[in-house]
Amino acid sequence: MADSYRAKLINSLSGFKSANLIGTVNKQGQTNLAMFSSVVHLGASPALIGFITRPHIVTRHTLENILQTKQYTINQVNKNIWRSAHQTSARYDADQCEFKHTGLTPMFIDEVNAPFVKESLLKYALTLEEIIPVAANNTQLVIGKVTNIICEPHAIRKDGYIDIESLETVSISGLDSYHVTERLSRLSYAKKDKLPEELSIDGDRLIKQ
Amino acid sequence: MADSYRAKLINSLSGFKSANLIGTVNKQGQTNLAMFSSVVHLGASPALIGFITRPHIVTRHTLENILQTKQYTINQVNKNIWRSAHQTSARYDADQCEFKHTGLTPMFIDEVNAPFVKESLLKYALTLEEIIPVAANNTQLVIGKVTNIICEPHAIRKDGYIDIESLETVSISGLDSYHVTERLSRLSYAKKDKLPEELSIDGDRLIKQ
Repeated sequence: MADSYRAKLINSLSGFKSANLIGTVNKQGQTNLAMFSSVVHLGASPALIGFITRPHIVTRHTLENILQTKQYTINQVNKNIWRSAHQTSARYDADQCEFKHTGLTPMFIDEVNAPFVKESLLKYALTLEEIIPVAANNTQLVIGKVTNIICEPHAIRKDGYIDIESLETVSISGLDSYHVTERLSRLSYAKKDKLPEELSIDGDRLIKQ
Repeated sequence: MADSYRAKLINSLSGFKSANLIGTVNKQGQTNLAMFSSVVHLGASPALIGFITRPHIVTRHTLENILQTKQYTINQVNKNIWRSAHQTSARYDADQCEFKHTGLTPMFIDEVNAPFVKESLLKYALTLEEIIPVAANNTQLVIGKVTNIICEPHAIRKDGYIDIESLETVSISGLDSYHVTERLSRLSYAKKDKLPEELSIDGDRLIKQ
């Protein structure tokens, strides 16, 4: 298999991937913004989120900045910014600002040194918790603890579920395909003795006639 | 925050998640099937895929079986089996077969001891490569090398991209919401000096009038 064919094939195996922009800043105040499709939930209490960095060019600035300043932001990519988000993966130099080159807007809050993406409708700040090397291929699992969540209030439903479909959050397949979603349903907690029931967007049972 | 509210909220932060069934077998030949939303691409060459296991009840059989027999399968969940897939997360005992209780069909090939899910349209076998403990919350990153891929041929496009949307692969948001997708587009490899172009499903440039 040619490398390019192989990369596209293997990248399709894991299923739909999350689409997130990671915002960082170095000690000199130079901001960086990079697209990641490997952000993964690790645990709710404490609230831990991970992502995979490669030992390569695209992600180097992100990891270097996190090591310098210990904070970063994760910003969900939505239908209004997916092209600009993709463009952040071009090989800009360290002194070139992805915000400027892609038209995305940096946004800051008092407690966090890293930039958020103003146009993202669900974003959060993290402090670095742990970096775990993956010996098998020299990637690293970067783990952060969530400190501040910024979200459109209407999307947070009464049981805590965030309706990210209503925020038009996109997902990725393979290396370069972007998708919006259509909900099938929420399902009740699985129990041995009965089949799962469909739930409303708020997590309530649907009344059946 | 109540634990349940917190779990639903934090599980919504990472974005859309992959929906996969992991098939395993123990040394006595007892099969197991479990739903995971944390399967993540680690690298194409070698072809490495990871997933996160919790130190808890739901995933215990999966990890124990992988440690015993070193092989497992990952099976993408599609629109025809999403309810059955969800049902595998009920707390069945080790001697209860999720295949039998959910109506999914085990399928075997010569070189692989673990069961595939017949109804899954994109599935692959892996051999255990590495298990990495995550100190921050006692989860583990389980890494496997892909050995055998079984996929509907029509979904594999000429540049290697697999059109998992055509397979009706679903994605998950939060803990319990299932979604099908609608493609926005594939995009060309990002370069500094120009904006990304939309590509056809085969990765070709679209001719503009």
